[in-house]
Amino acid sequence: MISKAKSRYIKELQVKKYRLAEQCFLVQGAKAVYETLASDYKIHTLVGTAEFLSAVTSTSLSRVNETIEVSEKELTAISSVEANNSALAVVRMKITKKPILSSADFALVLDDIRDPGNLGTIIRTADWYGIGNIIASPETTDVYSPKVINATMGSFLRVEVFYTPLDDFLKASSRIVYGTFLDGENVHKLNFDGGGLIVIGNESRGISAGVEKFITHRITIPRWGMAESLNASTATAIVLDNLKRRL
Amino acid sequence: MISKAKSRYIKELQVKKYRLAEQCFLVQGAKAVYETLASDYKIHTLVGTAEFLSAVTSTSLSRVNETIEVSEKELTAISSVEANNSALAVVRMKITKKPILSSADFALVLDDIRDPGNLGTIIRTADWYGIGNIIASPETTDVYSPKVINATMGSFLRVEVFYTPLDDFLKASSRIVYGTFLDGENVHKLNFDGGGLIVIGNESRGISAGVEKFITHRITIPRWGMAESLNASTATAIVLDNLKRRL
Repeated sequence: MISKAKSRYIKELQVKKYRLAEQCFLVQGAKAVYETLASDYKIHTLVGTAEFLSAVTSTSLSRVNETIEVSEKELTAISSVEANNSALAVVRMKITKKPILSSADFALVLDDIRDPGNLGTIIRTADWYGIGNIIASPETTDVYSPKVINATMGSFLRVEVFYTPLDDFLKASSRIVYGTFLDGENVHKLNFDGGGLIVIGNESRGISAGVEKFITHRITIPRWGMAESLNASTATAIVLDNLKRRL
Repeated sequence: MISKAKSRYIKELQVKKYRLAEQCFLVQGAKAVYETLASDYKIHTLVGTAEFLSAVTSTSLSRVNETIEVSEKELTAISSVEANNSALAVVRMKITKKPILSSADFALVLDDIRDPGNLGTIIRTADWYGIGNIIASPETTDVYSPKVINATMGSFLRVEVFYTPLDDFLKASSRIVYGTFLDGENVHKLNFDGGGLIVIGNESRGISAGVEKFITHRITIPRWGMAESLNASTATAIVLDNLKRRL
């Protein structure tokens, strides 16, 4: 049984201003909650069905401040997903530090990714390809929103997203900066050497003029058909697949 | 000015049963509506702002049954997108026929893709890579839903989606059938020869057992990191990029 006040508190965490004020966010669904329990994230509140909670080890539970047992119906009512038959966790945000990249490392730079599904999918894909750092413009959608966290399928635990004005970040960097355009070098033939940054442009307008001036390597995904462009998360995946096969 | 009855009719087309009954669907936003006007799709009703309508050529307009001028506010009120400052079209569905594939052709086979964003992105990516045919299980989400049509970014005009039970379709086919699994051949090293079908599994459970038995070539996207899986539309894009570079 969950109190009305606690239900309201959890629902409020779907909204950015409350997340910022509380420095907490929501993780929903059995798999993601299990993975979070096994991570070094601090869990304030674990809300779960009797079945879910009975399967959680006591070692995991000892890291949780508060545990609340609920019915599936109660759980779904406080969740942002369509149905939740297992668990939800209120998790403490971590302080993200400016990424320290070795000269061989690659990182993604997001130039105003607005769609939560795209950001979540980009994080999941980065995790698949072993990219641990993302630098995001302040206008990029909030990584802690439930839609983003859900779309990452747990990969938010392994990929750091660092929000900062891209101008300053890129000005201070001496790394190779790749950006996808329609007139760049074919990614199928490119030699990705010595690490670098890969800029992913906004869904509507692509890479902004302010960021474009820092691009050192214009790259292109070859096209066989008629679509004018690719989805931002799709383009990210294709660039990363081409990058990794060559390293 | 748009009548209440017409507004209601347009909003009803956001729901599958009304689309089926009317055999019509919605196309929203300037770019997609322009492209539809230039296609061989029949447009029943074109709803647009004065600015949009004045820019449409009379040749295009002659193909439209009915034109309604509205304010941006009226347009946004009947649209399923957050803001629509240009146009919306009520478009007649086409009868999709069983695809005729030459021996060198590739087609996608969708085994219950449920997320409209994923289906739309898959259609857009197929269009980019010049894949004109998609065979979809009856449980795959409806291609004519506004979310799917919006996510295709106009590519629904160039990619045919044919719904049919996959069992029967695959039983009758003698083509190579590729499917992504964790234990297949590396797509970076694969030789995609002689056309074939590429099966994309459902977002949660992957390729179903009923479809798996028709797979002739198990393939794998190599992984460098820790994510357990890739998003369905992401995996589609990576397979198509690897396929096309080798043809």
